[in-house]
Parts: sequence; structure tokens; C-alpha cells
Amino acid sequence: RSGEMAKLTQLIDNEVFRAYATYATIVLLKMMLMSLITAYFRMTRKAFVNPEDTASFGKGESAKKWLRTDPDVERVRRGHLNDLENIVPFLGIGLLYALSGPELYTALLHFRIFTGSRIAHTFAYLIPLPQPSRGLSWAVGYAVTMSMAYRVLTTVLYR
Amino acid sequence: RSGEMAKLTQLIDNEVFRAYATYATIVLLKMMLMSLITAYFRMTRKAFVNPEDTASFGKGESAKKWLRTDPDVERVRRGHLNDLENIVPFLGIGLLYALSGPELYTALLHFRIFTGSRIAHTFAYLIPLPQPSRGLSWAVGYAVTMSMAYRVLTTVLYR
Amino acid sequence: RSGEMAKLTQLIDNEVFRAYATYATIVLLKMMLMSLITAYFRMTRKAFVNPEDTASFGKGESAKKWLRTDPDVERVRRGHLNDLENIVPFLGIGLLYALSGPELYTALLHFRIFTGSRIAHTFAYLIPLPQPSRGLSWAVGYAVTMSMAYRVLTTVLYR
Repeated sequence: RSGEMAKLTQLIDNEVFRAYATYATIVLLKMMLMSLITAYFRMTRKAFVNPEDTASFGKGESAKKWLRTDPDVERVRRGHLNDLENIVPFLGIGLLYALSGPELYTALLHFRIFTGSRIAHTFAYLIPLPQPSRGLSWAVGYAVTMSMAYRVLTTVLYR
Repeated sequence: RSGEMAKLTQLIDNEVFRAYATYATIVLLKMMLMSLITAYFRMTRKAFVNPEDTASFGKGESAKKWLRTDPDVERVRRGHLNDLENIVPFLGIGLLYALSGPELYTALLHFRIFTGSRIAHTFAYLIPLPQPSRGLSWAVGYAVTMSMAYRVLTTVLYR
Repeated sequence: RSGEMAKLTQLIDNEVFRAYATYATIVLLKMMLMSLITAYFRMTRKAFVNPEDTASFGKGESAKKWLRTDPDVERVRRGHLNDLENIVPFLGIGLLYALSGPELYTALLHFRIFTGSRIAHTFAYLIPLPQPSRGLSWAVGYAVTMSMAYRVLTTVLYR
């Protein structure tokens, strides 16, 4: 059993894989933060979507008025969905990229720029900053993922 | 070739990794079930969003009345999206956690509580149960993922 | 360090894993394409959701008229969300399936049919083709993922 574990930890001991593990975790924690921000805005703006969520604010008609959409809540939700759409490809392609044996320096550059671009995207969306701030931060992360996909396909392509 | 396969199966022979594979698959199957429940409610409530989906119910104006939203359909869809938002971090962070060499007992505890919390969340959302049932089941899964992320970052952090 | 790397590349040298890496990347690139199609339709249909996105089309009331939903934009967005709901399970279950040591021929069959089904689904959704084209292409990908999940659970189930 400890022999097995030793073999397994070869993966986690690899520097590129450790870099991937670090930035994948950071970017996922950032995405998870969106749930808390949504909950915060739903509470403070009193804008809910499920009738059972407003029960503590009164009964019957008086509670129904909190079943509404709020621009701030919807904005965070759009940012959250955009995270999902972009972080899922990063997680999948990034893992395969990390296993394709890139140089540590190049890999770190990819992981760090992607993570920075998603943090910048969140600020650009939530403040909000004037365009093209949000568009550019999205495009940088998109380009990093495309660059990793190119490396994966040219290295491991199965024909 | 069989030597290669032998090396590869070292990963899948590891007990912690097998536990991760089991619970990740179960929780993904649970998420996939949401698609079937959505389809079921769309059919029985006759509530569709694409014009081509209502063609079998008649032509022209008579079919258009089924292009509508239904509270039950929307409820399942919100549950499905909440699954995506929470299961994606579990898959990514959970994989890295499994590779970080935790004790089998601790790992099983994490995977089982997370899986249980998402099943409970689905029941709380679809029945629906009064709050804070849904909120609590969500928070438990969220806390489990945070605990695994803490372990990953303290074990493999690349600086 | 180079010894470590050699061990790591054992994974990427495995033929089944290379097949997984290839098709997972292709299907993720297809999903990423949905972002570009959404952006294209938002621009050409002038249908935006964030006030800051319409600033370049004029100030005040004249820009507000572009804050609207458009059927083509919404259609692409539904296709994108359907991709997320189905490709996330494929990525997770497919990875575990690839590590469970299936025959290369069987694995390729699974990966190729899934990838084909998602490409067909996108065409069926965006053209749109009459039903049951979209329904069938969705069901084929769903069945492939279920088949891989069955293999994972019967091979690695941790009790």
C-alpha cells in the first residue's frame, strides 16, 4: 500500500503538475466565490426566485413581492455562468497540457495569465468597468486555453 | 503495451483514487438525471422553448401556446445549474485532493458527505422542502470542497 | 527531474489516454466556439444585456434600445448551456473510464461517437433541424456517457 502511494505521489511531485494543481484550485475557489456574492446580493437586495426562500420575510402576499429579479443579482449570475463556460475548458485542457510535458516556465506563464485574466474579468464585470475591459480580460483567458489546446493536440493527437 | 497498461492501472488501483472515481461518477450521474427530469416536466407540463419542439402538437398558432415557461421546469433547471456550479469545483479540486495522498478514511468522509449533500440538495429543491433545508445541504457540500482545496493548497502549492 | 518527467509521460504515452486527450480537447474547443457564435449574434443582431456593452452605439436612451433579447442569441446560449451540462459529465467520467483500462477499440468508439453526437447536436440546434434530430443527437451522447459510467463503476467501485 505505501509502495502504491509512492507511485501515485510521483504525479503530484512533478513541478508542472503542482503548478496546475495550484492555479486550478485558485481559479475554482474564485468561481465558488460567485455563489457567495450572489447570496449576498439576494439577501441585501431582497430579490429571490424560490417562494420557500421568502417565507421568513412574512406570509402570503407580503412575501411575494420579494420574488423578483434584481440587476445586481443578475449581473453576478452572468459572471458566474461566464466563469463556468471558460473555467471548465481550462480545467480539462489544462490538465492534459500539464501531462503533455511542457517546460515549467511556459506552463506557469499559461496558468498565471489565465488565472489573472479570470480575476480581472470578475472585477470588470462586477464594478462594472467600461468596455473593452471585460471583453479583453475574457479574450486573454480564451487565448491562453487555445494555446494549451494547440500544444495538447500537436503532442498527443490520436489519429 | 501491457507493461504500459500495468503502470497506468497503478493509479486506478490506488484506494483513494478508486474512492474518488466512485463518488465522482455517482455525483455526475445524479447531475445527468436532472436532464431527464427537465425533459419529463417539459413533456407533462407542455412547456417548451424551441418552436421545433412543439411541431408534433399541431401547426401554426395552436402549437405556439406551448412555447411558455413553467414553474416546475424552471425549478429543475435552477437545480441543474446549481449542480454544475458546485459539482465542477468538486470534480477538479477532488481529483487534485485524491492525488495529494490523503488518508483513505478522511478522503471517503469528504467524498461521501459531498455526494450526500448534493442528493439532499436535489430533494430539498424539487419537493421543495422549507428553508433552510436547501441552503444547509448546499453549504455542507461547499464546506467539503473548501476543506479539500485547503488540503491541496497546503500540500502542493507552487510558489 | 527528467526521471520524474519520464514517469509522468507514461500516462500521456498510453494509447487510450491519448485518445481521451484528443477527443476531450476537440469537444471542449467545440464548446468554446459557442462563445464566439454568441458574440457574433450579439454584434450582428445588436442584442446586449449589459449597459456598458452598448456604450459605443451612442449615449443615454439611444443606446438603451440595444438592451434586449434576440431569439438567435438565446438559441446559441441554450446550446452552450446544453454543452456544459453534457460535456462536464463526459470529461469527468471519460477520464476515469480511460484510466480503467478499456480496450483501445472500444474506448475510441465511445470517444468518437460522443464527439460526433455533440457536433450533430450543435448543427441540429443552430440551423435548426426539425425534431427529433436534436433530441436524438443529445440522447446518443448521453447513452455513451452512461456506458462509460457503467464500466467505471463495475471496474473501480469502492464499497
